[in-house]
Amino acid sequence: MSTKPQILSIESIARTRLFHVERMGLRFSNGVEVEYERLRSGSAGAVLVVPMQDADTVLLIREYQAGREAYELALPKGRIEKDEAVLDAANRELMEEVGFGARRLQHFKSVSLAPGSMTHMTHMVLAQDLYPQRCEGDEPEPLEVVPWSLSQLDQLLQRDDFTEGRSIAALFMVRDLLARQRAAC
Amino acid sequence: MSTKPQILSIESIARTRLFHVERMGLRFSNGVEVEYERLRSGSAGAVLVVPMQDADTVLLIREYQAGREAYELALPKGRIEKDEAVLDAANRELMEEVGFGARRLQHFKSVSLAPGSMTHMTHMVLAQDLYPQRCEGDEPEPLEVVPWSLSQLDQLLQRDDFTEGRSIAALFMVRDLLARQRAAC
Repeated sequence: MSTKPQILSIESIARTRLFHVERMGLRFSNGVEVEYERLRSGSAGAVLVVPMQDADTVLLIREYQAGREAYELALPKGRIEKDEAVLDAANRELMEEVGFGARRLQHFKSVSLAPGSMTHMTHMVLAQDLYPQRCEGDEPEPLEVVPWSLSQLDQLLQRDDFTEGRSIAALFMVRDLLARQRAAC
Repeated sequence: MSTKPQILSIESIARTRLFHVERMGLRFSNGVEVEYERLRSGSAGAVLVVPMQDADTVLLIREYQAGREAYELALPKGRIEKDEAVLDAANRELMEEVGFGARRLQHFKSVSLAPGSMTHMTHMVLAQDLYPQRCEGDEPEPLEVVPWSLSQLDQLLQRDDFTEGRSIAALFMVRDLLARQRAAC
């Protein structure tokens, strides 16, 4: 295992409402010095929820994605609020975006977005035993809920309007996790 | 399918060497107006390579990730250069980061990073029939290459130093893709 580079400096070089860019000076263990830029996440991270309506049906949402300038399918997600626990944030986002609460919530993996240039982490939560419960979110329009069969994951991957890396990773992980749960029964 | 919101304005509000933030004014079809911020990717996007040394062994790299301030395992990746084709970029990154070229390259999916707030796209490429070939990259230190068995993907997911969402998604997709190729033979 390599020795970590020494952090020579970290300075804030740009800040907007949503984004905060830092410049880092690093000296690697071989003496090479470099400057990197990274995006610092202001929040406690995000949650991404995999809501299972039954053993095979996941609830996706269709939402306008301003980065892509298109409506896309993805799993519900959102920022964790200050002092909010991961599972509470997941259940809140589920109520706001999908209109369900969950009696069973399981945090199964935390993933980075682009670990070389962003500090951001997303905590993935499996939500089961759903019940209807709607909470008011900050969405500019109601989101369409799209049930999808996990056994048809291949067809979902072929769609041009399903692109988000974290949603793809989460669905595969949950497909394996549920298969292991079934095998254990 | 909803009517796309009307884009009322796009303005550049911050720019550093690596990051470019835009503010967008949008009017949704229900009349609601909102302001969003998004990160505009300056480049032609990125490639992420899944290099298979044999039918089950993928070559990961261990690299210092400045966003996480830690060494992590991930798939090789990098930016596509101006006027460079996706497969050429994938083979170049493979030579620079792993020390192999590939005789067979297949672009199997393009994924977004955070489509709501970033324009960035990553093109995923399966690399097979590898041969030793090293090219000079811009890494500050040599990267460690770590072979991993795709049949041991579960153990990889349990590691705290394997977090990158796109790498997780790509390994699952390739595992399925190779299983389908074997089934077809």
